[in-house]
Amino acid sequence: MILLTPGPLTTRLSTRQAMLADWGSRDGTFAALTANLRDRLVQIVHGEKTHVAVPIQGSGTFAVEAVLQTLLGRDDKLLVLSNGVYGERMASIAHRLGRKVEIRRWPHSSQVEAQEVKAMLVRDAAITHVGLVHCETTTGLLNPLAQVAEIVTEVKRHLILDAMSSFGAIDIDVREPPISAVLSSSNKCLEGVPGIAFAVVDKELLSRSSANSSSTSLDLHLQWQEFERSGQWRFTPPVQVVAATVEALEALDREGGPQARLARYQENFSILLTGMKALGFRLYLDESVQAPIIATFRSPEFWPSRDGVFRFDDFYAAVARRGFLIYPGKLTSDETFRIGCIGNVSKSDFEELLRVIADLLGASEGPTGRTGSGDQAGGD
Amino acid sequence: MILLTPGPLTTRLSTRQAMLADWGSRDGTFAALTANLRDRLVQIVHGEKTHVAVPIQGSGTFAVEAVLQTLLGRDDKLLVLSNGVYGERMASIAHRLGRKVEIRRWPHSSQVEAQEVKAMLVRDAAITHVGLVHCETTTGLLNPLAQVAEIVTEVKRHLILDAMSSFGAIDIDVREPPISAVLSSSNKCLEGVPGIAFAVVDKELLSRSSANSSSTSLDLHLQWQEFERSGQWRFTPPVQVVAATVEALEALDREGGPQARLARYQENFSILLTGMKALGFRLYLDESVQAPIIATFRSPEFWPSRDGVFRFDDFYAAVARRGFLIYPGKLTSDETFRIGCIGNVSKSDFEELLRVIADLLGASEGPTGRTGSGDQAGGD
Repeated sequence: MILLTPGPLTTRLSTRQAMLADWGSRDGTFAALTANLRDRLVQIVHGEKTHVAVPIQGSGTFAVEAVLQTLLGRDDKLLVLSNGVYGERMASIAHRLGRKVEIRRWPHSSQVEAQEVKAMLVRDAAITHVGLVHCETTTGLLNPLAQVAEIVTEVKRHLILDAMSSFGAIDIDVREPPISAVLSSSNKCLEGVPGIAFAVVDKELLSRSSANSSSTSLDLHLQWQEFERSGQWRFTPPVQVVAATVEALEALDREGGPQARLARYQENFSILLTGMKALGFRLYLDESVQAPIIATFRSPEFWPSRDGVFRFDDFYAAVARRGFLIYPGKLTSDETFRIGCIGNVSKSDFEELLRVIADLLGASEGPTGRTGSGDQAGGD
Repeated sequence: MILLTPGPLTTRLSTRQAMLADWGSRDGTFAALTANLRDRLVQIVHGEKTHVAVPIQGSGTFAVEAVLQTLLGRDDKLLVLSNGVYGERMASIAHRLGRKVEIRRWPHSSQVEAQEVKAMLVRDAAITHVGLVHCETTTGLLNPLAQVAEIVTEVKRHLILDAMSSFGAIDIDVREPPISAVLSSSNKCLEGVPGIAFAVVDKELLSRSSANSSSTSLDLHLQWQEFERSGQWRFTPPVQVVAATVEALEALDREGGPQARLARYQENFSILLTGMKALGFRLYLDESVQAPIIATFRSPEFWPSRDGVFRFDDFYAAVARRGFLIYPGKLTSDETFRIGCIGNVSKSDFEELLRVIADLLGASEGPTGRTGSGDQAGGD
């Protein structure tokens, strides 16, 4: 089964095989593995001189909550820039934790506007931290990280970057303009298995954040302190997941690093988009704001089913029978579905997927009933 | 490497091999796997009619915190019965969460006294919940669950049982006297790999606990609701760990269930204790309160090192070179070390371990300098 989702993803066999050993979680060999993991995560975002990596057990959401618990004090205020479900979730997590939070929303199809953010920060001196989702998995939209980071730096606030779906593929540099905290998880562009998430945090900021967390499990400061003190995880880590993630990070190096990985994802996306357009499907986003991570397509208005109606569940099942797992849409406003371009998948997988979808449409018919082959069926 | 620790443990190859597949976490086949997991966990403690299993990402501590976050309201008060590090941790988690908590301590070598608990509960009507650690991994002590549960029921409070080191081996029956919540993790007596923990909770109590958690990630009520609604995990689960845990639960069935597993652990413990006594080591606890899960031994006063001093780190390294990982002590009052009896280990492993330790002691010398073979060297 090929997973074309936002994660868990299709991983390399070598990554999964790294889980065939048992590890003593407090043994020196496992501490060395953890140190290797932490070093590699910091290097990916060029934070060797300023930042530390703090992995944590659980999913990406656990890392988001741990970062907010730990970095936001009672007198701090978070401004979340939101154009999707994950921006909303960041704000909701902070709100439930009792932290001061404001949310600025843009339509799901539009990028965050850096100049608008600047105006808000200038107006409201109480805002201490700004939360941004780099690539919004809701749609696949890429937000303008550089511009936002520039402005947050200019007005001397802290940027918290949810890089869940971009870390390891789309370039992130925490140095200039500085990013205070970047967080992600093992099972996205790093192509590891799920079970750990992490934050790469400005060391100076983290060291001043010991008094904030009311959670024991999600206290990133104590988690970091224990790594520094003993090299060990505070609480039992998923040892096999850690081993698989380190193997996945080595595979990232072998592939040529984030740049080479992004190039493969770009090829995947390009083949997918060209093929889907040729079959009459329409991309939800404008191509100029679309990241090559996960693509959202509008559900077609006509489908060769008995009543001519496209039903995602039937489409999902039919594609799954041919070996591919795709993903439902997450928009309430529009009927959509998503196809991921990340994981250990490449050109031939997308070519095969397109053949499968073409077959479902019947020999030469596109989903809108027009001829499916050739540029004229783009459907835009 | 054979792990003789409180976990992560030595697992079966079949358990680790279950991690060789990729799974779509929102696919129906994975939902079926999750349902299987949840059903089996409830069955182990006989809660089919009254309880539901709510797995959660992370280590056992994450489950403890999730249970306290979710079940304790602002007006509730928790009484923690503590004779070890894990009782202290439960109280500390509740305290940091801002919940009302009182702690009653017994010495690390003594069981919780049920009659004393009764007096406290009668005196203080504000106490709504009682927290007990079934088997204290700090020492290996088994607390008197039946007596405590009886009394908590009699005075109509809720019992929260941390069964981290007992679930799946030592019998727990949530029905009579009732236990409101039992929690544990995948990588202890269930012999799965680490990465998920879980609580088996009284359904009626859980359904009344929607308003308590300030944490998004650790909200057990919402986690449960999502399992019931869609069969899916709210946030990305460690899919391979879930698959390994289900395989481990099937292996538990094949072995003959918790009773058969306990019998194996008892044999492991018995061989270990007899052999260690013969080598002159002394058990920290009185045998009458010792569970066959993990054994704490006092560090010997004499050791055949250059200066006659026993150093745990050297002992650990020497035993590790021969293929066994043991565990440091966790008592501040006494010099001790621990050897676990759980995991996919049996008689022959302990016989080999004893040969290794005997070798370290030299042909016929016990750690106290007396003859190491024969009953007279028991050292009690």
